[in-house]
Amino acid sequence: MNRSLLLIDCTDKKGLIHEITGVLRSHNVNIETNQEFVDHSSGHFFMRTEFSGSFDSGKMYDDMMKILPPNSKVKLTGKRKKNILLMASKEHHCLGDILVKHSFNDINANILAVISNHEILRSITERSDLPFHFVSHENISREEHENKILNIINQYNPEYIVLAKYMRILNAEFTGLFTEKIINIHHSFLPAFIGANPYKQAYERGVKIIGATAHFVNHNLDEGPIISQDVININHTMNAEDMARAGRDVEKSVLSKALKLVFDDKVMVNGNKTVVFD
Amino acid sequence: MNRSLLLIDCTDKKGLIHEITGVLRSHNVNIETNQEFVDHSSGHFFMRTEFSGSFDSGKMYDDMMKILPPNSKVKLTGKRKKNILLMASKEHHCLGDILVKHSFNDINANILAVISNHEILRSITERSDLPFHFVSHENISREEHENKILNIINQYNPEYIVLAKYMRILNAEFTGLFTEKIINIHHSFLPAFIGANPYKQAYERGVKIIGATAHFVNHNLDEGPIISQDVININHTMNAEDMARAGRDVEKSVLSKALKLVFDDKVMVNGNKTVVFD
Amino acid sequence: MNRSLLLIDCTDKKGLIHEITGVLRSHNVNIETNQEFVDHSSGHFFMRTEFSGSFDSGKMYDDMMKILPPNSKVKLTGKRKKNILLMASKEHHCLGDILVKHSFNDINANILAVISNHEILRSITERSDLPFHFVSHENISREEHENKILNIINQYNPEYIVLAKYMRILNAEFTGLFTEKIINIHHSFLPAFIGANPYKQAYERGVKIIGATAHFVNHNLDEGPIISQDVININHTMNAEDMARAGRDVEKSVLSKALKLVFDDKVMVNGNKTVVFD
Amino acid sequence: MNRSLLLIDCTDKKGLIHEITGVLRSHNVNIETNQEFVDHSSGHFFMRTEFSGSFDSGKMYDDMMKILPPNSKVKLTGKRKKNILLMASKEHHCLGDILVKHSFNDINANILAVISNHEILRSITERSDLPFHFVSHENISREEHENKILNIINQYNPEYIVLAKYMRILNAEFTGLFTEKIINIHHSFLPAFIGANPYKQAYERGVKIIGATAHFVNHNLDEGPIISQDVININHTMNAEDMARAGRDVEKSVLSKALKLVFDDKVMVNGNKTVVFD
Repeated sequence: MNRSLLLIDCTDKKGLIHEITGVLRSHNVNIETNQEFVDHSSGHFFMRTEFSGSFDSGKMYDDMMKILPPNSKVKLTGKRKKNILLMASKEHHCLGDILVKHSFNDINANILAVISNHEILRSITERSDLPFHFVSHENISREEHENKILNIINQYNPEYIVLAKYMRILNAEFTGLFTEKIINIHHSFLPAFIGANPYKQAYERGVKIIGATAHFVNHNLDEGPIISQDVININHTMNAEDMARAGRDVEKSVLSKALKLVFDDKVMVNGNKTVVFD
Repeated sequence: MNRSLLLIDCTDKKGLIHEITGVLRSHNVNIETNQEFVDHSSGHFFMRTEFSGSFDSGKMYDDMMKILPPNSKVKLTGKRKKNILLMASKEHHCLGDILVKHSFNDINANILAVISNHEILRSITERSDLPFHFVSHENISREEHENKILNIINQYNPEYIVLAKYMRILNAEFTGLFTEKIINIHHSFLPAFIGANPYKQAYERGVKIIGATAHFVNHNLDEGPIISQDVININHTMNAEDMARAGRDVEKSVLSKALKLVFDDKVMVNGNKTVVFD
Repeated sequence: MNRSLLLIDCTDKKGLIHEITGVLRSHNVNIETNQEFVDHSSGHFFMRTEFSGSFDSGKMYDDMMKILPPNSKVKLTGKRKKNILLMASKEHHCLGDILVKHSFNDINANILAVISNHEILRSITERSDLPFHFVSHENISREEHENKILNIINQYNPEYIVLAKYMRILNAEFTGLFTEKIINIHHSFLPAFIGANPYKQAYERGVKIIGATAHFVNHNLDEGPIISQDVININHTMNAEDMARAGRDVEKSVLSKALKLVFDDKVMVNGNKTVVFD
Repeated sequence: MNRSLLLIDCTDKKGLIHEITGVLRSHNVNIETNQEFVDHSSGHFFMRTEFSGSFDSGKMYDDMMKILPPNSKVKLTGKRKKNILLMASKEHHCLGDILVKHSFNDINANILAVISNHEILRSITERSDLPFHFVSHENISREEHENKILNIINQYNPEYIVLAKYMRILNAEFTGLFTEKIINIHHSFLPAFIGANPYKQAYERGVKIIGATAHFVNHNLDEGPIISQDVININHTMNAEDMARAGRDVEKSVLSKALKLVFDDKVMVNGNKTVVFD
C-alpha cells in the first residue's frame, strides 16, 4: 500500500493540529492513522501521520513550514526500508535473530554490512549473503579501533547503526557523529545494573526479575533515551550464567521490538526520553 | 484542572480531524491531549480530545453536528465523576478494592449503592457509609429477582452498573436496558473458559496461565465487548482452589484498570469490540 | 486440613535429604509437599516440607538435630496465622488492601494493630475493628519517634512488622531489633531508583516500565533481601503523578504476594537474598 | 560438568523420597538439585534429581525398581543432547530461531534434519549445514503424505519431533506413533481459538491479549498436554495481520522455552497435563 509519513517535532502552539491537517486537506490526501503528543512540561509538540494519495512533497513541505513555529523539524517520507549497519562482538543471539528476519524480508531495513571485533559471527553473516568486516580491537587504542570502524561506516553511509550485543565502549567522539542514530541493547533493566556484568550484579542483589533495555546511544554509558524495555521472572535456583541464558531471549525480543518501532518511524526523541507512537 | 472532554463516534470521511479541530479553534480552547482512530474495515471514526478554556457548550455541540456526517455521536462533557451502582454476591475482593478506593477519593465515580443477593458484604459496605440492598434470589424466579433489582436501580438512575463478582446470570431483558452501561469482571481470560467454574476448567486443561477479563455485558454470556485483560503464570502445584486464590488479585486489578478507563471516558464501543484511548 | 511444616536451613552435606526424610518416616507422617534448594556457592541447604499426621514434635525436633550439622536452624510448626503489626503513613492503598483481606479471613495473619504517623488512616482501621495508634513524628527527633513506636510494638510482640507505605526512614537501632521480621514495599523496581521520589526519578529517566519491590528491611535503605517484584508498562503520555497512580496497583499486588509467601513460611533468607519455595 | 539425571514417575506411597534418596546415598553420589511433586488427586509421584559422581547405572536402576511400586517409570541418564527432527511449512521465524541456536551450540539438541511441505525454508536449512527434505502435500491424500514423512522419520529415529509452525493436520495414526514425542507451537493462548486462523478469530473477538502455546501433540487437535504459554498485549489499532506479526515473537519465545524445558528433561506428562520442574 502506498502510504506516506509526516513527522513533526516543534514548539507547541494553539491550533497546530487544525493547521497541519488543513495543509494535508489542501493536498487532498487521506489520513490513515494519526497520533499527537504534547509534552506540557517542555512545551513540545510531536505528531505522526500516515496518509495515502499522491501529492507534491516539495510544496507540502513548504506549506507545513509556513504554518509551523520557527525551528520546527518536519519529515515527509514514503514508508521505506532504512539502510542499516550492524555491529556485534561474540554473542550470536541478537545478530542471528536480525539476520533471519532480514533473509525473509521480515524487517523494515536493508542491512548493508556487519562489523565485528571478533571472527565468530563471520559465518552466519556471510551465509546470509552479507558483507562481514572483522576489525580487531587487540593491541590498538580505542581511538584507533574506532577510526578503523568509522572508515568502514563512511563507505556505507547507514541511516542507523545497530549495536547487537557489540560490547566495546564507544567514545563520545564516535557517538557524537551519530546522534539518535545508534541503537543499543543493554542486558539489564536500566537504570539498574549500568555497565559491565549486569547479570552478575543482578545475581548478587538477589533480584527476582531481570530485563533488557533498547536505547539510543549518547555520550554517557547506558544513559541515552530509552526506546523499549521488558523483563522476565527469575528465581533463587538461577546463578549468573542461568540468568544470562534466560536473559538472551529478552534481549532478543526487546531489540527486535525497538528496531521495529524505530524503522517504522514510530519513535521521536524528546530530550533524554522518547515518544513512542505504538 | 478544568478540563473538558470531546468524544466523537461517526462515519469516517475526508478532512474530519481538520474540521473538528477547526471548531475547537473557533471556540478558542486549548487542546491538551488528542487521540483518533479509524476502523477502516467498518469505516468508523473515533476521537477523544481533552481541552481547557471556557466555551459555549451548546454552540460548540451545534457547530460539531454541522460538520459531522449524519448519525454521529458527539459527547461534550466536563471531566466529572460517574454515578455508579455496584452489584456483588459473596466474594469480597473486587467490591472491597472499589470501596477502599472510594473512601479515599481514588476512583472517578460516586458509588450510589451496593446491591447483593447475599448478606455477607453488608458490613464492609455500610461501614464505608454506603447503602446496601440485599435482594435474595432464593425461591423466586430469575425474572422476579431481576425485577426487584430493577426497582432499586431505577431509584438511583446510575450511569454505570459494575458487576463486582456478581454471580447470577442476567437475562437479556435486563441487560438490554443498560447497553454499554454494565461492566463485568469474568474470572478467565476470554474467550477461554466461558461460563461457570473457569478455574476448575483451567485446572483440568492444565494451562500454565490464567487470567481475568473486564467487559461490557450484552445479551450473550461473557461475550460482550472486552475492555481489559491480564494474566498470571501458574504451575502444576496449584489445584483449582489455589488458582482461584491467585486469580483474585488479577480480577481485582483488571476490573480496577477497566473502571479507570471507562470512568475517564477512554473507552468507546466499536461493534463487539472496544477502542481504548489509553 | 491439619498440616505441619518443617523448615530447615543448614550447612549442606551428603545424604541430608535421605536422613531428614528418614526422621519423618520414623515418625510415620505423610509428606504432602517437599522442596529443597542447595546454594552451592555458599554451601547452604534449605528445605521446606509440609506433612500430615500426628507426631511428637519435641522428639522429632531432637531427632532432626541429631542428624543435622552444627548450627542448623530447624523450625517445626503447625500451619498457623502469624501475629503482625502494620505501619503506614498517608497512602491508603496497601493498608486498605490488607485490611479488606483481613476482614474476610483472606490473609494468613492476625493483625494486632496499626501504627501511623498520620491520622488519615484511623477511620479505615477502626471500622475494620482494629486498634489504631497515631504517633506523630513532628517536632521530635527520629530517635524519640522510634522509641515511642517501639513502646507500642513491645506491647503487642508481633512476629512480623509490615511497612505498608510507611514512609519514615527507620534507624539501624530500630531495624536491628527485628532482623528478617520487617517487610517493606518500595515503590520502584530495585535496585533502580533507591530512596525518595522514585516515580519522579523514573519520569526523568524516561523508562518504559516501572515496578515495585517487597523486601526484608536491614540497616541499609532499600537494600535488604528481596522477596517479590513486579512491573507494569508505562508510556510517554504519563507524568510522575500518572506513574505514581499506576504504580499503586503494582505496589498493592507485590506486597500482597510477598506477605502471602512470608506468612505461608515459603521464604527463607539466604545472605542478602531469599529462597522462595513457591 | 558431569551430571546425571534421575527421573521417576510412579504411584505415590509413604516414604518414597527417603527410599529413593537412600538408593542414591548407597551409590555415594552427590545430589545437586532435587524436585518432587505429588498429584494428590491422581495419587501420582514425580521426581527429578540431578546428581554428580560415578556410579553403576545398571545396579542403581535395579535398586530403584526394588523399592518403587509396580509399573514405575524410571529414567537414569546423563545430561546429553536429544536427537531431534524439525518439521516446518512456510513461516520462517520458529525454524530460523532454532537453527541459529543450533549453529552456536545454544540448544540441548542435535538437529538431524528438517522436513517441510514447501521449498521456502530449504535455503536457511542447508546453509546451516543440515539436511532438508521437501515432501509436497499437493495432489496426494493426507495418508500418503504422512507415509512419505514417516519413511523419512524412520531413517533418522529421532527422540523428538518439533513442529515449528508445521501447518498440516497430522492424523491420529501418525501422532499415535510418537506419544509424548511431538512438540507443537500453536499460535494462540489455548484453549482459546483452537484450529485455524486464531489471529483472525482474536481480531474478531476484540481481545486485548494474544498468546502462544507449546504442547505435546495427541490425537485431538490442539488438545495435548500444555508445556508452556505466554502472552503479549495488543490494542484496537491492530488488525489480524498486525496481530500475527506481533504474535511471531511470542511463538518463537514460547517454543524456545518449551524446547529448553523438554530437552533438559524438566517436563513430565501427568495425564493430559504436564509437571514442569523449572
